[in-house]
Amino acid sequence: MKPQGKVYLVGAGPGDPDLLTLKALKILNLAEVIVYDRLVSDAIMALAPAGAARINVGKQPKQHPVPQAEINELLVRLAKSGRKVVRLKGGDPFIFGRGSEEALELRRNNVDFEVVPGITSAQGCAASLHIPLTHRGLATGVRYVTGHCRDDIDLDLDWAGLSDPQTTIVIYMGLANIGTISGRLLAAGRGVATPVMAINNATHASERHLLSTLGDIAGDSAAAMFSGPVLFIVGEVVSLYEGLSREREQHDVARLAAVSH
Amino acid sequence: MKPQGKVYLVGAGPGDPDLLTLKALKILNLAEVIVYDRLVSDAIMALAPAGAARINVGKQPKQHPVPQAEINELLVRLAKSGRKVVRLKGGDPFIFGRGSEEALELRRNNVDFEVVPGITSAQGCAASLHIPLTHRGLATGVRYVTGHCRDDIDLDLDWAGLSDPQTTIVIYMGLANIGTISGRLLAAGRGVATPVMAINNATHASERHLLSTLGDIAGDSAAAMFSGPVLFIVGEVVSLYEGLSREREQHDVARLAAVSH
Repeated sequence: MKPQGKVYLVGAGPGDPDLLTLKALKILNLAEVIVYDRLVSDAIMALAPAGAARINVGKQPKQHPVPQAEINELLVRLAKSGRKVVRLKGGDPFIFGRGSEEALELRRNNVDFEVVPGITSAQGCAASLHIPLTHRGLATGVRYVTGHCRDDIDLDLDWAGLSDPQTTIVIYMGLANIGTISGRLLAAGRGVATPVMAINNATHASERHLLSTLGDIAGDSAAAMFSGPVLFIVGEVVSLYEGLSREREQHDVARLAAVSH
Repeated sequence: MKPQGKVYLVGAGPGDPDLLTLKALKILNLAEVIVYDRLVSDAIMALAPAGAARINVGKQPKQHPVPQAEINELLVRLAKSGRKVVRLKGGDPFIFGRGSEEALELRRNNVDFEVVPGITSAQGCAASLHIPLTHRGLATGVRYVTGHCRDDIDLDLDWAGLSDPQTTIVIYMGLANIGTISGRLLAAGRGVATPVMAINNATHASERHLLSTLGDIAGDSAAAMFSGPVLFIVGEVVSLYEGLSREREQHDVARLAAVSH
């Protein structure tokens, strides 16, 4: 009888391989099989040992090449065959990563597992753009929400609770619904001039960002024609972004250019 | 004229040195001076180069050995003397770390700086205890708040907005005020049976944790006589903690023992 394997649910961080933790890299070096998402960058996969098997279960929005239930089963099966399995996920496995669903399935099947946290996109963006997530006098806290709807279920966020002007809101996976989200935030009482930063492909070489306001972000995002993940940071902390005035001018020029097409 | 130095605002993570990012370690290796907090563990300081000067500006609650304004000035002065300065902070510098105040002061003084994110305590605790911060059906998002009052100013959180049962709340620096905080959350409509996990010295060898409920957490925390930082995770996700029933029994026994003293 083979000894049982183990699954490591590992956060790969926002993209830059230098934002992996030391623990993530050590565990990656022990991997026999790596099950990874589309959010895990090529630069990070290049750090994996040459001998490790690689299984891409990457998801594209609106296309689900490998359903979550099959990923869960795959992890159980690989571990039961005695393998050291690294389940590598963008960001942190326990923040919008569905890592907890995988963990529950592993526990139900008595598979040993370990969770390794990762830098989540909000932190990567905050650090690279110099926008703090909290700041005395501007934000007493920060809140991460997802803008992604589950299939046909409406976005059911706590809109009233999102209206606090002293809380920074970070919206993950919100691009498709940014019009609805910004409209609901305005209706709940957030100011139309509340600054918003949209960050596309955070910490990757292809990172782009767009400074806007809650009133303008839906139109501006549409005009920007982003491709890849977009994160929105909403709140007064965005006013600390150091290139504010200069960027604002470029943004207005870019918007005019987009509108004039 | 000396070339100007640079300040790196670096997140040291929750305590375990393996939770440093690769970038944090690379930058630490280049440090000429390290300005660090009491939340930075000895194990992490042991990774710093032997030749680097070390300045402890650690804060104890209710004692402020080095006021923030002096830390700000120190960073500016060290950088202007041409040094590579690592400002090493527990957790993430842009989440309750006052890193943004230091960054603003550096910018005002035209000092070059860079920010390196770190795993924040909430993530370290979530991973080590297997409590996800978000989970489909239980928590659509997560919110980090601070329970620390600025001097004599009352805790002024958005209590109504904190009542959403589908949002996980993580309270940093909340031990001294946990009675007030839990009372206000109950008054705002959070259920008395909402599970709460208190984590003391997260990811350190001395980590302790206490499972309780919103109704009991104030008394239980007092009885536990914690020493060192305590983080509270409040919300239905805590029910996923795998040792739930067993831990609950131990907890009740511990509470009885504490009460009988």
